[in-house]
Amino acid sequence: MILIKIDKDSSQPLYLQISEQIQLMIEDGRLKQGDTLPSSRSLSTQLEMNRTTITKAYENLWAMGYTESQSGSYTRIRGRELLCSMTSGESGGSSLDWTGRITPSCSRMIEKMNEVRIPPVDGDLINLSSLSPDSAYWPLEDFKKCITQAAFNGDDYLFSYGDPAGYLPLRKNLAEYLRTHQIRTSADEIIITSGSQSAIDLVFRSLLKEGDVIITENPTYGYLIPLLQYYNCRIESIEITEEGMNLDALEHVLKTVKPALIYTMPNFQNPTGITTSQDHRERLLSICERQKIPLIEDGFVEELKYTGKTILPIKSMDKKGMVIYLGTFSKVLFPGLRTGWIAAPKEYIEKLSTIKNSSELCGNNLTQAAFSNFLSSGLFEKYVRKIHGRYKNKMSIAMGAARKYLHFEHLNYTKPSGGYTFWVSIRNVNYDEQHLIRAIEDAGVSVSPGSKYFVQSSEDLHFRISIAMADAADIEKAIEIIGGVVAGLPRCEEGNNVPG
Amino acid sequence: MILIKIDKDSSQPLYLQISEQIQLMIEDGRLKQGDTLPSSRSLSTQLEMNRTTITKAYENLWAMGYTESQSGSYTRIRGRELLCSMTSGESGGSSLDWTGRITPSCSRMIEKMNEVRIPPVDGDLINLSSLSPDSAYWPLEDFKKCITQAAFNGDDYLFSYGDPAGYLPLRKNLAEYLRTHQIRTSADEIIITSGSQSAIDLVFRSLLKEGDVIITENPTYGYLIPLLQYYNCRIESIEITEEGMNLDALEHVLKTVKPALIYTMPNFQNPTGITTSQDHRERLLSICERQKIPLIEDGFVEELKYTGKTILPIKSMDKKGMVIYLGTFSKVLFPGLRTGWIAAPKEYIEKLSTIKNSSELCGNNLTQAAFSNFLSSGLFEKYVRKIHGRYKNKMSIAMGAARKYLHFEHLNYTKPSGGYTFWVSIRNVNYDEQHLIRAIEDAGVSVSPGSKYFVQSSEDLHFRISIAMADAADIEKAIEIIGGVVAGLPRCEEGNNVPG
Repeated sequence: MILIKIDKDSSQPLYLQISEQIQLMIEDGRLKQGDTLPSSRSLSTQLEMNRTTITKAYENLWAMGYTESQSGSYTRIRGRELLCSMTSGESGGSSLDWTGRITPSCSRMIEKMNEVRIPPVDGDLINLSSLSPDSAYWPLEDFKKCITQAAFNGDDYLFSYGDPAGYLPLRKNLAEYLRTHQIRTSADEIIITSGSQSAIDLVFRSLLKEGDVIITENPTYGYLIPLLQYYNCRIESIEITEEGMNLDALEHVLKTVKPALIYTMPNFQNPTGITTSQDHRERLLSICERQKIPLIEDGFVEELKYTGKTILPIKSMDKKGMVIYLGTFSKVLFPGLRTGWIAAPKEYIEKLSTIKNSSELCGNNLTQAAFSNFLSSGLFEKYVRKIHGRYKNKMSIAMGAARKYLHFEHLNYTKPSGGYTFWVSIRNVNYDEQHLIRAIEDAGVSVSPGSKYFVQSSEDLHFRISIAMADAADIEKAIEIIGGVVAGLPRCEEGNNVPG
Repeated sequence: MILIKIDKDSSQPLYLQISEQIQLMIEDGRLKQGDTLPSSRSLSTQLEMNRTTITKAYENLWAMGYTESQSGSYTRIRGRELLCSMTSGESGGSSLDWTGRITPSCSRMIEKMNEVRIPPVDGDLINLSSLSPDSAYWPLEDFKKCITQAAFNGDDYLFSYGDPAGYLPLRKNLAEYLRTHQIRTSADEIIITSGSQSAIDLVFRSLLKEGDVIITENPTYGYLIPLLQYYNCRIESIEITEEGMNLDALEHVLKTVKPALIYTMPNFQNPTGITTSQDHRERLLSICERQKIPLIEDGFVEELKYTGKTILPIKSMDKKGMVIYLGTFSKVLFPGLRTGWIAAPKEYIEKLSTIKNSSELCGNNLTQAAFSNFLSSGLFEKYVRKIHGRYKNKMSIAMGAARKYLHFEHLNYTKPSGGYTFWVSIRNVNYDEQHLIRAIEDAGVSVSPGSKYFVQSSEDLHFRISIAMADAADIEKAIEIIGGVVAGLPRCEEGNNVPG
């Protein structure tokens, strides 16, 4: 007779309850090789249970190798000496050192990820940290219509393996859309990716060999840094001024360094918010042309220029096919639907398409079709017009508050002409970044620590302010709070910089 | 006066038509640096057009750097000597050698992809080639309800950045579902991926260093081969017999080779359709335990066992945490929604989650929520019950036809107990694989050439037959046709093998 406890209210099926309890008895030695289980008839009587339930439990035990089947019965406990039992040693964890098995490049990357990752923002704080579009503005009803339209009126193709380059109508609509930014391209010069990050990974995978150098602005997009650790590549970073990447410094560096790629964000650079001029873009492109260096242009919020004349993407001037242009729906629409794109010369897009095919077969057709509908119906344009005014208003509130509350001799901030972020720099102070960020948090505001964006660390302290997610009503208050924190913290004697 | 042709019926905005024609004139030299465009007033009169349209066209030209703005006018053609014109040399293509820039490992991989890729099947042929579920069985209406339920009743979270490990309710539902295969796991031991291929890529990325060896069955899943070229790893392949990977041969190889991974498909192996026994699984697992080798178990159609007793996944016996179990919705449900998963020890899943975070931030929340609803509502179970009978019927028709029409002394075929594929081997013939495949196609049937699955080539000829997509009604006819082709092709004299 064996003791089995049945819980009829449990969501776990009865046969599994029986089977698991017997397994446990075998594993902890209460039942041994050669022992016999009660017949299904007697156990069903004992447990007051249907006999087929017992049979199902016994079949399970057999299938898992716990019992031997002999002349139609499954009741004899089998030797499982080859397998380790759950309770014998190994303390329940794995006996493999998985962490030790991770490759050195992935381990370095993981370590770096833990440094640059922006933790979720405490809900009680005013969020000037996240660079994710304001969900209050999302055109959910319109977009849901595009999803159902794709799911219900589309054909089965959307549920099948698709083109590795992405859903063709979306690529066509994107080519059309890019013309509004004067980028003349066609569907076969575009590949759809799972957001910008996977676009960057795809470009790196295709073009970076171990030991290669890539040039970026300093500071730059933080998530580049761990990825380049993975590819065993070195970042050579060039100071960014109010005009953008310092091109004299770039030309100087190029005398000795032959980079595999240059990465730039000409509009509202993340984190600084700086936008480059037409002349700057022409000069950067011509440097790349002369030196034959592919240029990644990350146009992550191309749509959100608030002030000043339109300045066109570098890609729009790219007659020689030097530019790998990255676009995404994640920074104005839905990050969770992971849809971005690369526009580049056809020859290169074809290679990327095969590489994508080898590593993930294809993308998510249904989501791509929904975005395609959203573009072709004019809803995207309508949405961008709507949010443009709202974000512009938030940024103008932020700039007004900064003029009022961030007016310190030892503090500078950038004045972006669009996008979501601006950049605060503090010098000659007696405290470090962690202290500053914590003091601001303690006062009720979350900002993003500058060190997450630096390739080469800076002597000054910095943080990024993002107006993306905060309510317009909270922004002025939050910046007033930051000003109060900065005013209350000690400064050094003139000329006594403390490294941050 | 300049000549501009306007097409009022074109979908291209009027201002763009004007702006592009002027650009062209500048590029081909009809307009030169210092030339002046007509005033917007005079051009608007000439073209019988609203003046604001002309102004917009001129603003565009300025924004692209074609004209200079002086005291409010944009009409003077600017020097663009830094930029190359579209028509000067370079034959319209890129002046960068993009193909030459692709890294050697990606180039090798692309080359191999072109070998293993299965081209789309001509619609006139009976398709015994594709390993993609039959769309005729798809529960589109049920699934669309799950999508709209997720999109309309879910919260905004689904459209935001999500957990890199995947949507938590889906992971919980998968853990529950895996219990039906006796795999005891929890949400934090699961990561959601964009299908199985990206799961494999993620595992390779995390564990494979250049020069590492991975052990697979020979033949094996074709798309592994190019991916391993990318990782600069070597496949050591072990012959598969009717019992599965030859474990004696494996133990022999392990005396001299220390592989980073072993990859196996214990159920209905792709391409051979072979299923291993309980004993085989225990022995393979115990080899991995003794030698501390992580084991990838690809459970791609775990659900489709037709005959014989249930045999459980190796993962269900994995007390020591050696097994990386791969599952996917692509092979029974929708390939186009790219949803698969990895079940493995928590410590390892956490690393994979950070790696995924670094290379694509997160997955597609909305799709994951739809699958989660599909699982939790019991619709997946209902669907699997339905298709199980249908595919079983197709396989039994195929096996019946094979007994009748593939009965040759020089031909063997496997007899799968589940899944979609079986494997045909032909020896002692006087023709090569290409000739055979073409002859079968000319007769109206598409099968998958065996060489796409071989790591080490085989002397015999092989092809894979898949019953996944063909109509039940066509399968017998198709196999009769194949039998006819084989009968009509020349054989060698006994003992005169011609290498395939």
